[in-house]
Amino acid sequence: MRIDINADLGEGAGFDAELLELVSSANIATGFHAGEPKSVAFAIREAQQRGVAVGAHPSFADRENFGRREMVLPPGEIFAVVTYQLGAFRALAEAMGARMNHVKPHGALYNMAARDAEIAEAIVHAMLAVDAAAVLFALSGSALEAAGRAGGIAVAREVFADRNYMPDGSLVPRDRADALLHDPAEAAERVVEILRSGKVTTIDGSRVAVAAETVCVHGDTPGAVEFVRQLRASLARAGVTVQPFRSS
Amino acid sequence: MRIDINADLGEGAGFDAELLELVSSANIATGFHAGEPKSVAFAIREAQQRGVAVGAHPSFADRENFGRREMVLPPGEIFAVVTYQLGAFRALAEAMGARMNHVKPHGALYNMAARDAEIAEAIVHAMLAVDAAAVLFALSGSALEAAGRAGGIAVAREVFADRNYMPDGSLVPRDRADALLHDPAEAAERVVEILRSGKVTTIDGSRVAVAAETVCVHGDTPGAVEFVRQLRASLARAGVTVQPFRSS
Amino acid sequence: MRIDINADLGEGAGFDAELLELVSSANIATGFHAGEPKSVAFAIREAQQRGVAVGAHPSFADRENFGRREMVLPPGEIFAVVTYQLGAFRALAEAMGARMNHVKPHGALYNMAARDAEIAEAIVHAMLAVDAAAVLFALSGSALEAAGRAGGIAVAREVFADRNYMPDGSLVPRDRADALLHDPAEAAERVVEILRSGKVTTIDGSRVAVAAETVCVHGDTPGAVEFVRQLRASLARAGVTVQPFRSS
Amino acid sequence: MRIDINADLGEGAGFDAELLELVSSANIATGFHAGEPKSVAFAIREAQQRGVAVGAHPSFADRENFGRREMVLPPGEIFAVVTYQLGAFRALAEAMGARMNHVKPHGALYNMAARDAEIAEAIVHAMLAVDAAAVLFALSGSALEAAGRAGGIAVAREVFADRNYMPDGSLVPRDRADALLHDPAEAAERVVEILRSGKVTTIDGSRVAVAAETVCVHGDTPGAVEFVRQLRASLARAGVTVQPFRSS
Repeated sequence: MRIDINADLGEGAGFDAELLELVSSANIATGFHAGEPKSVAFAIREAQQRGVAVGAHPSFADRENFGRREMVLPPGEIFAVVTYQLGAFRALAEAMGARMNHVKPHGALYNMAARDAEIAEAIVHAMLAVDAAAVLFALSGSALEAAGRAGGIAVAREVFADRNYMPDGSLVPRDRADALLHDPAEAAERVVEILRSGKVTTIDGSRVAVAAETVCVHGDTPGAVEFVRQLRASLARAGVTVQPFRSS
Repeated sequence: MRIDINADLGEGAGFDAELLELVSSANIATGFHAGEPKSVAFAIREAQQRGVAVGAHPSFADRENFGRREMVLPPGEIFAVVTYQLGAFRALAEAMGARMNHVKPHGALYNMAARDAEIAEAIVHAMLAVDAAAVLFALSGSALEAAGRAGGIAVAREVFADRNYMPDGSLVPRDRADALLHDPAEAAERVVEILRSGKVTTIDGSRVAVAAETVCVHGDTPGAVEFVRQLRASLARAGVTVQPFRSS
Repeated sequence: MRIDINADLGEGAGFDAELLELVSSANIATGFHAGEPKSVAFAIREAQQRGVAVGAHPSFADRENFGRREMVLPPGEIFAVVTYQLGAFRALAEAMGARMNHVKPHGALYNMAARDAEIAEAIVHAMLAVDAAAVLFALSGSALEAAGRAGGIAVAREVFADRNYMPDGSLVPRDRADALLHDPAEAAERVVEILRSGKVTTIDGSRVAVAAETVCVHGDTPGAVEFVRQLRASLARAGVTVQPFRSS
Repeated sequence: MRIDINADLGEGAGFDAELLELVSSANIATGFHAGEPKSVAFAIREAQQRGVAVGAHPSFADRENFGRREMVLPPGEIFAVVTYQLGAFRALAEAMGARMNHVKPHGALYNMAARDAEIAEAIVHAMLAVDAAAVLFALSGSALEAAGRAGGIAVAREVFADRNYMPDGSLVPRDRADALLHDPAEAAERVVEILRSGKVTTIDGSRVAVAAETVCVHGDTPGAVEFVRQLRASLARAGVTVQPFRSS
């Protein structure tokens, strides 16, 4: 059994160094919700030195709300916004001898692309234009996954280690009390459950199909890093190898 | 006799459409002093439809001062800042079937690179990393021209149609009363003088060597556009062909 | 009035140096009907030093017949054959600070792509994969022109200075006695006729619509070079500017 | 403990399908000692479907001797020969959604680059020009490894599972009776010895320092495939993970 563990990096949160020892893929902020050229270059270098795969983490232009506010834009503008960020990231990565291994939309852009086919396609078109060999990280079962496959892009289906699932396979919204799962042992069990069975237990005890090639973790608080450390140890005990997801 | 005429575009000034009928190269703002992905894409499309060559116009990150404030940054950061903007611009251009034909640093970055070899080299390294076949627009005789040639990059030496020259070949500083030349006929005469003789008449009447493959014009006021129109007509009468400068 | 003049280069014919003083675009053999890496690099350098635009001249793999024998291949194989040659050419050009400005299929591949939509599309797909900003040189009115436009590629319509035209706009086959036009003054007149009127006089005296952004000349015999020299002089007298066709 | 297992592919040997189940990296012939565009595309697709990393396997132009004859060429020509092949391979890989993960010179080019710094540098310059993020496969301790590191390229040091070593760390020449090691269990033991100790036992029983990030195997006879199968099983028993070597 294999899984990739991904986390956001270069957002100025302060636990990047600890996270890089624990994850296999880093999603690096490309300047629209956080970061600027110097922080992108720094995060690429740090990841590279530890064998962590690097990817672009494009967002709506919205530093005020950290890219979390949903914005209504025509598909052509989303294409331009994502192409701009992927081009900037790819240039920095290649200038430093690295690859843009993957692309993971950030925040509101990720959520909107999960349910809206037009937005999802605009992102896939930007990937085809900038680098057809990069991997798209998409919520398992989402419109973004479908658009990626339709465009011939390699897709890594993503699950969230610390989020609970609704009976229909969507995430429990963040504003609900039962949105999060706090115990890393339980989180690891759930990832192993998904890898073994292709299903996840939801909040009502039912089980729904879900696939996982990459699992998202967070590092924006000290406790979050400890959560990832224990998750990783549990996965090792269960015989799960942690490594980046690559397109070939 | 041939010359390229370049102007800044996509800065929101409002006379882009008029300018595009008159110039052969457009320097498009890449989001750091002005512009954002949509305006870059729009300006590329508009230029492309008129056969105007497009180039990146990278700047310090300084929207407040329109990129005109000098900033002291380590060369590694200037490299990252320029690589980011060139990568973003190149991706958008190629996604639209166009080329990043040239690179012209904007404002304070242009001025600092003209006199500081380290800054000039950081810009040239970014060009080598992102696109070694693009042309560098550099002030004739500047440190930037030298760095470009040392790096094997094609260089187009730039002169300014509406600026007066000091006896040492530098531009009369903008804060002096005699900084600008207001008569387009006189400006055209001067460009023809440079093309014919390789020299320009300075404010004290002496003549100093200067070479010109591209001449910079402005379009940020209605009068400026009329200035360019008359300049272009005068050049035509003098038998000067206006066309983009290309690397091969 | 403007026109590009293109000729094949790097085929070992021996008049490359003379031709480079007369043309604005060079189609460089990419190793499948003639040439090898060293000759490609040499031809790019020679063209670059004279401001001549360089393009790839891909062919069927057929050195025995100089790429002139028609071959029946599945579209997927034609895609692979062309992608391979364009990738090789682009890498060499960019390594030397030049651009792959255009792509012109050679010999039998050119002829088949002119009439067969599937072959034409395979070539256009290869261009989109390798460099969407390169210009496609295609026989005016051909299936290749149509495929290029459908794919969003810039197309330069090509005419032949030394070939006669059938009443339907196709070229008189090479095995007919009246295939060729031998007088450079007459050839120049015809190019000017096409530029002015959008029509060409055919062998039966009728006139058929044809458009020209690039005119093909040959240099494989000493007389051919002299033909081009006189053609170029006649075009100059008629006020036609000779310059490369660029995508933007 | 981790190691990459690489093998040559697309050379028409007939055991490609079996090999692809056993190795983690495929070196694909790029048309100069074997292969042509269709076989390159086919091998990329086959490797991609099994998660095997693909790399270019450039050679001197020498189909007659399968690239095994040493040729004396100026460095500039070696640069052109390698740039051509890497450009062709990269274009095909990216057109199919894959990456050129690595570059391994073939046959005589590999052997000459191992001992000659100028040839090694020409290969590294070609990699920098075509793709600075690809990994160079180089004989551990060779001039090629040194040139790769000096150029800032990621290097995977290579050992040979079925070859015996001289006391100075070089391979026993192929024409000697003791050149080859025939027992896969012994070969696996040796790879584990290298991974654990950084040393290999040579033909006189002494031990010499050698590092291994990738181990080369062959598949040109049925026995060779069986050798690899047993080698892989032995590595698994020793707790060695087999996976591609990546630049970041």
